[in-house]
Amino acid sequence: MIIIGELINGTRKAVKQAIADKNSDFIVNLAIAQAKAGADYIDCNPGTTGEAEVCDMEWLVRLVQSAVDKPVAFDSPNPLALQRAFEVYEGSATPMVNSITLEAQRLADTLPLIVSSGASCVALALSDEGMPGQSGQREQTACRLIDTLLEAGLTQSRIFLDPIIAPLGTDINAGRQVIEAITAIKERYPEVHFTAGMSNISFGLPARRLLNRVFMTLCMGAGLDSAICDPLNADLMAEIIAADALLGRDEWCMNYLTAFRAGKLGE
Amino acid sequence: MIIIGELINGTRKAVKQAIADKNSDFIVNLAIAQAKAGADYIDCNPGTTGEAEVCDMEWLVRLVQSAVDKPVAFDSPNPLALQRAFEVYEGSATPMVNSITLEAQRLADTLPLIVSSGASCVALALSDEGMPGQSGQREQTACRLIDTLLEAGLTQSRIFLDPIIAPLGTDINAGRQVIEAITAIKERYPEVHFTAGMSNISFGLPARRLLNRVFMTLCMGAGLDSAICDPLNADLMAEIIAADALLGRDEWCMNYLTAFRAGKLGE
Repeated sequence: MIIIGELINGTRKAVKQAIADKNSDFIVNLAIAQAKAGADYIDCNPGTTGEAEVCDMEWLVRLVQSAVDKPVAFDSPNPLALQRAFEVYEGSATPMVNSITLEAQRLADTLPLIVSSGASCVALALSDEGMPGQSGQREQTACRLIDTLLEAGLTQSRIFLDPIIAPLGTDINAGRQVIEAITAIKERYPEVHFTAGMSNISFGLPARRLLNRVFMTLCMGAGLDSAICDPLNADLMAEIIAADALLGRDEWCMNYLTAFRAGKLGE
Repeated sequence: MIIIGELINGTRKAVKQAIADKNSDFIVNLAIAQAKAGADYIDCNPGTTGEAEVCDMEWLVRLVQSAVDKPVAFDSPNPLALQRAFEVYEGSATPMVNSITLEAQRLADTLPLIVSSGASCVALALSDEGMPGQSGQREQTACRLIDTLLEAGLTQSRIFLDPIIAPLGTDINAGRQVIEAITAIKERYPEVHFTAGMSNISFGLPARRLLNRVFMTLCMGAGLDSAICDPLNADLMAEIIAADALLGRDEWCMNYLTAFRAGKLGE
């Protein structure tokens, strides 16, 4: 499972404050904690706009690189912020752009950067027609987006498709539709990765952490092999490690046993 | 999710003692606790042999019926014990035989009782050739068993197929094979139920409860709609309730919300 650590996000109150104060220690600690907890990518989302966002992105990317040896996910819709991120990125591992969609403007702004940099990307199944409604529509938008990226020269394995998760509380089929979409799209593009932020599924319902982690497992069963999540959530990480083993993705259960010995499985 | 409460089982030490002592209170309390926690069937396994088993089965079935209004799963390979169970069973809901296999002797002994009684049955994918090895073999045995039961006059919905779970610790593909088998068999027999005892998957590994409940969720994603389990395991039941909602099997999330209000979701 490829974990994209989501905590350095300027829409979170404490992070917004740290970015405003240029509190390096706070950001560095968040990067280290996430890497230690199992993050494979460290997401950086300044949460600001315009020229501030460009500077804040540079500051975040430089800081994270100084703290941990993990690739960074550049999380912004602003092409100038993305460009600056690539300019200051020094890691040997391929970074990631979070995200691209099928929306015309976003595509025009972001795709050239992804193509020329060789980066991976989170591809949101979103078009100018808005959020996918029925299951079939989600798959259609996702396939059009994937085809567009492949035509532009990306390989399947550089694409992390996010099927877009809608709240279960407003549509009892919201979970099932995502699972079916992953299954169907994976059959057509076997090398494409699937990722998602899980927390939208539980919006408006109680016991959200339970729903989020069980949904993660269900999606993993369908083919999800990445998640944009909080690696410091121990219950979630334990569930992911167990699911990886149960799906045959953890040879000799080595990762599972190591996590157990490190006290990470909570029993 | 159809829960078969497994706790009244004479192979468990305390239950064995209670059966030896004819400690009715102990058995009655176990039945009530399981029903209250969400069991749909109360399994009764005397764990004794010969004539004692026949008497013990009668005692258990009478006791459970006196305590709760739930159908009973008669859990024994002994046809005389099963016959006695049917004779003393008075519930209006269809009971269940746990279990039948493709083994010639077991089939000859048990199938006529299931057919004539109209009971449901747990059908273990097990033949005289022993435990299924590779995934294909598991599916083959299961399909032969289902065909045999259908030819004898059972409907698909009376069959609860148990695909037989092998330990992950000895075969990293053990989990994946069961998931694939459920998917394949369900496609062929859409009305057949799938059930299993989960605990075998984690045999020999640490943090077993974690593995058991995550595997339950993965199997539910593939089509498992029943489990032979301990309904007093609150974490397991919370995971099942969440998975049911996420799979679209819980209209308006009513069961999920009710469980939350009753404090059963642990958050």
